[in-house]
Amino acid sequence: MSRVITAFRASPDRGRGLARDMRVRWALEELGLDYAVCLVDFAELRAPAHLARNPFGQIPTLEDDGLVLFESGAIVLHLAQSAKGLLPDQPHPRARAINWMFAALNTLEPPILELESALLGESDKAWTAERRPLIEQRIDQRFAALSTRLGAAPWIDGAFSVGDLMLVSVLIRARGPGILDRHPVLRDYVARAEGRPAYQRAFAAQRAVYLASRG
Amino acid sequence: MSRVITAFRASPDRGRGLARDMRVRWALEELGLDYAVCLVDFAELRAPAHLARNPFGQIPTLEDDGLVLFESGAIVLHLAQSAKGLLPDQPHPRARAINWMFAALNTLEPPILELESALLGESDKAWTAERRPLIEQRIDQRFAALSTRLGAAPWIDGAFSVGDLMLVSVLIRARGPGILDRHPVLRDYVARAEGRPAYQRAFAAQRAVYLASRG
Repeated sequence: MSRVITAFRASPDRGRGLARDMRVRWALEELGLDYAVCLVDFAELRAPAHLARNPFGQIPTLEDDGLVLFESGAIVLHLAQSAKGLLPDQPHPRARAINWMFAALNTLEPPILELESALLGESDKAWTAERRPLIEQRIDQRFAALSTRLGAAPWIDGAFSVGDLMLVSVLIRARGPGILDRHPVLRDYVARAEGRPAYQRAFAAQRAVYLASRG
Repeated sequence: MSRVITAFRASPDRGRGLARDMRVRWALEELGLDYAVCLVDFAELRAPAHLARNPFGQIPTLEDDGLVLFESGAIVLHLAQSAKGLLPDQPHPRARAINWMFAALNTLEPPILELESALLGESDKAWTAERRPLIEQRIDQRFAALSTRLGAAPWIDGAFSVGDLMLVSVLIRARGPGILDRHPVLRDYVARAEGRPAYQRAFAAQRAVYLASRG
């Protein structure tokens, strides 16, 4: 098999599907593509072999028939272009699906990453409790805008696409801090996505890796 | 002309080319594509006409022959796929150029946005002075990794591509706070990109809009 992704041997999210390999596994399952997983320990992230795959020392990466990619957005887009199922055939709907991928990664995810930085990297700082509502407000504003656009539709623009896959993957990261529950339209959207068999296969696969790491 | 972008009538960056329409203008100039600009005031960003284009109320947007896109990454990718000049023809180099676009937007830009949030949105808070070095450290780590990968090469992966266009567009946002100057490999990379005639045409166009707004 020529398609190999990297993932954490012991993910810091404890198998809750928040690590970015989950997005890639989910896309692979939606597309019905086989893949193998190369597990890496934290210490290996900074080793030359992994930095050759990803200069920023993160997971996931994809090696596919000699091609090496390291951004989850680029990997999912590449896979979606390789097989049918996640991108509309018509040019305009296709461009709009890709637009929603970028919205997930460059409009919705940055304030969520900021909250994660605060809760993980600045948890010992006196200011974090007071800052937290400011960051959550930035997330809430964007979630409210997305809720308005989604409305009563099952998916963001017609049939389920890479746009939905990436939006849901990002929204899920705001569940732990309780933000997603404040936005019922998005909470239901995430639940709908989690009910997809491909999601469940991907979730089970990443969870099995974490459980195995605990021995 | 069917291709219309939106931009600020009076950009908060005072015409320094940091607003996200600059990325799109630059891509259009590199590709030799004509475009018109629809200027919007801040008050119009939340008006129904603009929210129909972009539910998050931001600029830029693109309307191209009936297609409406609102993420600068998606717009630049769409344009690069519409004309020759910013994407390699071969599938592997093409996928890698797109990978660098995502790296710019989802790995490099989030900590820069976090610094902008701190300096603009939390400038009145007592903690901002103490937090600033923590955020800059996150940016420096990623800039160091990118510097190592770029090395002595003029562009990130062969010929100039959308990957370079987006990396440079993001790196420029770290010049004001003095971070870019700490990374000479990247500072020279940005200077090389700024020397491109297409960059200069795009920069002059957005600057002329700002100067006109001052009457």
